[in-house]
Amino acid sequence: MRPDGRKAGELRPITFERDFTNFADGSVLVSFGDTRVLCTAMIDEDVPRWMRNTGKGWVTAEYSMLPGSSPERIGRERRGPKGRTQEIERLIGRSLRAVCDMAALGERQVLIDCDVLQADGGTRTASISGAWIALHDALSRRVAAGALGRHPLTDHLAAVSVGIIGGEARLDLPYVEDSTAEVDMNVVMCGDGRLVEVQGTAEDEPFTRAQLDQMLVLAETGIGEIIDLQREMIAEPPSVRASQR
Amino acid sequence: MRPDGRKAGELRPITFERDFTNFADGSVLVSFGDTRVLCTAMIDEDVPRWMRNTGKGWVTAEYSMLPGSSPERIGRERRGPKGRTQEIERLIGRSLRAVCDMAALGERQVLIDCDVLQADGGTRTASISGAWIALHDALSRRVAAGALGRHPLTDHLAAVSVGIIGGEARLDLPYVEDSTAEVDMNVVMCGDGRLVEVQGTAEDEPFTRAQLDQMLVLAETGIGEIIDLQREMIAEPPSVRASQR
Amino acid sequence: MRPDGRKAGELRPITFERDFTNFADGSVLVSFGDTRVLCTAMIDEDVPRWMRNTGKGWVTAEYSMLPGSSPERIGRERRGPKGRTQEIERLIGRSLRAVCDMAALGERQVLIDCDVLQADGGTRTASISGAWIALHDALSRRVAAGALGRHPLTDHLAAVSVGIIGGEARLDLPYVEDSTAEVDMNVVMCGDGRLVEVQGTAEDEPFTRAQLDQMLVLAETGIGEIIDLQREMIAEPPSVRASQR
Amino acid sequence: MRPDGRKAGELRPITFERDFTNFADGSVLVSFGDTRVLCTAMIDEDVPRWMRNTGKGWVTAEYSMLPGSSPERIGRERRGPKGRTQEIERLIGRSLRAVCDMAALGERQVLIDCDVLQADGGTRTASISGAWIALHDALSRRVAAGALGRHPLTDHLAAVSVGIIGGEARLDLPYVEDSTAEVDMNVVMCGDGRLVEVQGTAEDEPFTRAQLDQMLVLAETGIGEIIDLQREMIAEPPSVRASQR
Amino acid sequence: MRPDGRKAGELRPITFERDFTNFADGSVLVSFGDTRVLCTAMIDEDVPRWMRNTGKGWVTAEYSMLPGSSPERIGRERRGPKGRTQEIERLIGRSLRAVCDMAALGERQVLIDCDVLQADGGTRTASISGAWIALHDALSRRVAAGALGRHPLTDHLAAVSVGIIGGEARLDLPYVEDSTAEVDMNVVMCGDGRLVEVQGTAEDEPFTRAQLDQMLVLAETGIGEIIDLQREMIAEPPSVRASQR
Amino acid sequence: MRPDGRKAGELRPITFERDFTNFADGSVLVSFGDTRVLCTAMIDEDVPRWMRNTGKGWVTAEYSMLPGSSPERIGRERRGPKGRTQEIERLIGRSLRAVCDMAALGERQVLIDCDVLQADGGTRTASISGAWIALHDALSRRVAAGALGRHPLTDHLAAVSVGIIGGEARLDLPYVEDSTAEVDMNVVMCGDGRLVEVQGTAEDEPFTRAQLDQMLVLAETGIGEIIDLQREMIAEPPSVRASQR
Repeated sequence: MRPDGRKAGELRPITFERDFTNFADGSVLVSFGDTRVLCTAMIDEDVPRWMRNTGKGWVTAEYSMLPGSSPERIGRERRGPKGRTQEIERLIGRSLRAVCDMAALGERQVLIDCDVLQADGGTRTASISGAWIALHDALSRRVAAGALGRHPLTDHLAAVSVGIIGGEARLDLPYVEDSTAEVDMNVVMCGDGRLVEVQGTAEDEPFTRAQLDQMLVLAETGIGEIIDLQREMIAEPPSVRASQR
Repeated sequence: MRPDGRKAGELRPITFERDFTNFADGSVLVSFGDTRVLCTAMIDEDVPRWMRNTGKGWVTAEYSMLPGSSPERIGRERRGPKGRTQEIERLIGRSLRAVCDMAALGERQVLIDCDVLQADGGTRTASISGAWIALHDALSRRVAAGALGRHPLTDHLAAVSVGIIGGEARLDLPYVEDSTAEVDMNVVMCGDGRLVEVQGTAEDEPFTRAQLDQMLVLAETGIGEIIDLQREMIAEPPSVRASQR
Repeated sequence: MRPDGRKAGELRPITFERDFTNFADGSVLVSFGDTRVLCTAMIDEDVPRWMRNTGKGWVTAEYSMLPGSSPERIGRERRGPKGRTQEIERLIGRSLRAVCDMAALGERQVLIDCDVLQADGGTRTASISGAWIALHDALSRRVAAGALGRHPLTDHLAAVSVGIIGGEARLDLPYVEDSTAEVDMNVVMCGDGRLVEVQGTAEDEPFTRAQLDQMLVLAETGIGEIIDLQREMIAEPPSVRASQR
Repeated sequence: MRPDGRKAGELRPITFERDFTNFADGSVLVSFGDTRVLCTAMIDEDVPRWMRNTGKGWVTAEYSMLPGSSPERIGRERRGPKGRTQEIERLIGRSLRAVCDMAALGERQVLIDCDVLQADGGTRTASISGAWIALHDALSRRVAAGALGRHPLTDHLAAVSVGIIGGEARLDLPYVEDSTAEVDMNVVMCGDGRLVEVQGTAEDEPFTRAQLDQMLVLAETGIGEIIDLQREMIAEPPSVRASQR
Repeated sequence: MRPDGRKAGELRPITFERDFTNFADGSVLVSFGDTRVLCTAMIDEDVPRWMRNTGKGWVTAEYSMLPGSSPERIGRERRGPKGRTQEIERLIGRSLRAVCDMAALGERQVLIDCDVLQADGGTRTASISGAWIALHDALSRRVAAGALGRHPLTDHLAAVSVGIIGGEARLDLPYVEDSTAEVDMNVVMCGDGRLVEVQGTAEDEPFTRAQLDQMLVLAETGIGEIIDLQREMIAEPPSVRASQR
Repeated sequence: MRPDGRKAGELRPITFERDFTNFADGSVLVSFGDTRVLCTAMIDEDVPRWMRNTGKGWVTAEYSMLPGSSPERIGRERRGPKGRTQEIERLIGRSLRAVCDMAALGERQVLIDCDVLQADGGTRTASISGAWIALHDALSRRVAAGALGRHPLTDHLAAVSVGIIGGEARLDLPYVEDSTAEVDMNVVMCGDGRLVEVQGTAEDEPFTRAQLDQMLVLAETGIGEIIDLQREMIAEPPSVRASQR
């Protein structure tokens, strides 16, 4: 029995609040249980110097935890991001790029920002799942405005954490499980069921191939459900933005 | 006539959303029109080394704008805070300390964090007005729990911006007015009507004593209204927190 | 009775030593009592990239305290300037820009440096008062050399500190008064008596409107006297510089 | 057919040169083909402050590429390590800790340094495979000297890269394959065949569960062979060190 | 014939202005021609942690050029000191330590600061020559106050630059000669004629042993004259300081 | 009698291992006894912006000690190089430039990297002696490939340390002598016997002119022997490089 009463293969309640803020091109407040992340997407009509004249665009991401997001205050990273932060940022950016057609995007850069308002485990996978919608909305608005010929996103993308606790594979770990898990794994998958990232780590105890397979099965199911929620959400196009501020 | 139809001495709609997040000791989402700031207060049961054995506590503040809070993305301050940021942080901390009895607080440090989710002018004054409630709630919970003998806050505290636009003194400037004002002034006042900070700056044109006086009158009225809202809010004590996360 | 025997509304002895050094375009050693600041102005015949092709110039300032300027050694700011330093630098630059016609300056940048050789209170206001002369001399030399068609400074500018000590408003605080003042205020004014900056801070005790008014009256008189000294000094044009070093 | 003529499941020639340098407690120059990494282990008879009085030790790692290790010069990371570097350092440290009994190590910290002298793909996996021997030697010397009651390493540990190139799973990628792979995966395994880390990334194209399985099979075989080489090497104890330098 | 009319072995006019500022324990404004450096010495009644309980003290130095000290503005070193700066600081500190009896100093640290107000060549050697007096005064005051049993300085110390210009050895180079010299050498010597530092650098052309010898002869004579000036200056004890500021 | 049995004027065994790595344009592992430094030279077919259109090139150097190179681990310089490091880098670069014809080099920059694998005294002088060969090889390959019309190196260059231990002048100090020497001197000389750098420092006791002369004589002989070894080594041209990696 899990601390919050869920079954091993059950997700926490997941919600996406679209246009939580109004000035970014796309803005989504994603919740996985008590984990809440504000994901914004901002389109820069320019690319870094080294990408000019390639006809292609770029998607990159930054991640941060607000100081008050956790019972122990999280210090701001004002002397450079920590290793963990950079790892997460690289993961989010790489994952989103895997489903973005850079030629369709053209010479534009999209900056994704994931700011954790409340942290209860799985912040990086919630970030990816929410950022995909923020990115989709930002690009849909450009398509609607005629600035983009076709939508650059080629598929859905979502992520979830899985782990081994007390020898049992479980889906979508809250902090209390995450901090005691023997194995912690993050899986990123796209809409056609193919894998984009698999990062499994023995926190305490090496794991067997059989355990790896169990975790992958849970992740696959969980991500499928999240992508269904994404599909529902984007069925309706994002609101038209008047000129801002 | 102002861009949003307000009168010269009229505030934007102001709201305080208490316990917007659950892990900080105090947490308030404050809105002044489209400006929205998440203010949290976290109590550290220790003080910096140089304050030990003084019997007194300390209150300090940090401030940041989320990258997506503005139509132009705001870069994260990962190589040290900018001058503007430090100025605002020093202002918030100093203002709150002016109404906090450090001996009643005892050897504890309170860390205030003001993170701007959406920026439409007056972020520093909204931060002070919201942070006061977050701080009050955090301390009230300690009083209720018996950890503090009496509440360390000695008075209310709120702030507002005023300015001269087209020669006219106006209250509570949104971005569109702030960016074209001849004079920009921030006023911090406590519940008994005395001044804590007055910072007036000629952005474009020096100002007369008469103009200074007009701005001070508007600020006094506006802050009075904000403090009335604070009074309403804290009339009800904050919820009791179960053990966190 | 004040520690140095002055009356409440009396300035310390103020002197300006012109061309204290020879390689800068303008160089003034200003003394307010024991506070001594070396102010230099250097004209860069180029502007930052973002100002090119605007036809306008810029004035910016840096401030520093020499390590031996104070009885307690002041550490060098080699890992970035402190918040206080940046606040002062922003104040000096903004104030000088308020009396400089940027179109008359043309696409040039003037860099003001204020280095405190000895610190006894009021270093930022002494810096502004001295920097104005250094800037004036630097520009006068360019006018005399025919490089500038008209002098870009539109008015005098000076500053002074005021405060409340033991309930009494006093002018031009030395360190011993500054460190025990209930309220500390810096006022920057131009030659026509209009205000450029008003920054009042309750260090210990909030202050009333009446006290604010008393401080403003003292500041106005004091700044008037400083501007009279500036007028005397610039009545004589600066020496002609031969080619340097 | 692979660029260097190997079969899909074949490793490059792998060698370990023990005691390549003499001052570190353990020192191994590991080669995977043209990739050469100097791995040293140094035992600090103290632990970080936060570990004191826990009775337990710690193992941590740093990684760097020498500027001349690559045809394009690699800049030194003198303004903080890059994200990639920190990711690798965290991976090496975490992997080694998974096979180290921290209570047997006692309150000591081992610092592993992996400096890439020549980079031809797979530097992080070569680092892990070589660092394990350097760590083993350093600890064996402490056991031989009577400072440690039993050897803290509980198992072997080695790592290898695998990938999908042109749809085919291949083992131990050199730079030329790594830079064009559709999928890149690093696998860390211990001597009993259990997994410690699995990090698979779609560089270009998402991958299927079947492809993941193919890569895992190759990795398992390859790591088995590397661990056989480790076993041979440590069959003979490290030389006794006279007092150093 | 030299640009300023001096003979090859002639010093520029050298002056020492004692107690140029009043808050430091020792303060000297030294001039070598147009080169002017403010040297202060401040005694810290504590030593760095690693020197505690050794019964010995330490002398260390910092060096900086004010931005306006040179016709081309010198940027402040706010992101860490440059290599040249650190080299000079290490030279000044090491040289002064060579004539200081650390046991007589006891567990105190002296911080020397050399701030160049005007730079016309030879700033590091002027700094050493002036800093010795500032250090001597600071320590003399402690001796006079009974805090030190005997004066820790064991000998005089001074420095001068020499160089080869157009094949000719010359003493005490101003900027115009320094910037075109084939060889640049700094020599630090103590009162008994022994050498403390010899740093000769071929800026443009390697030099012969014979040229090295010529430069050393000039330096020896020049330093002798500077030390005579120091002797005159310290013949009179420094003023007694009242309590500061 | 010296700790390792050498005579006062005898060098340690010196070897140069050419092409120790394969990707750099020149690569030499130099050993002076137990001191071992990997020196690489990499030619950048571009120059820093400020050198463009001058027709001239540049040579610059970086230096680092690997963490495991010393019995006490050396921390990586990830927050900026230390003063000692920068001093050594400036020395290596300046010395090599003294024997390089920058017009013959053309608008190219050569980056020299000296990474100490094992440190037993004299690392900076070993670096210079080895870097000269790495630089020579890198340039020889460009000459052989027809990219350079003539070889830009105008002479040999080597360096050695000398010192005074127990009053006796000694050549090529290992760590055990270096750390107890009264005087430490580094001498850089070119093939025609002229001096490029002389840096003598009284670590403990000032030194006489006579002692300086003794050290210079030892250095001259030692460097002559090192240059003979260099001559032997470069008598044979470096191997032809196939396309790399």
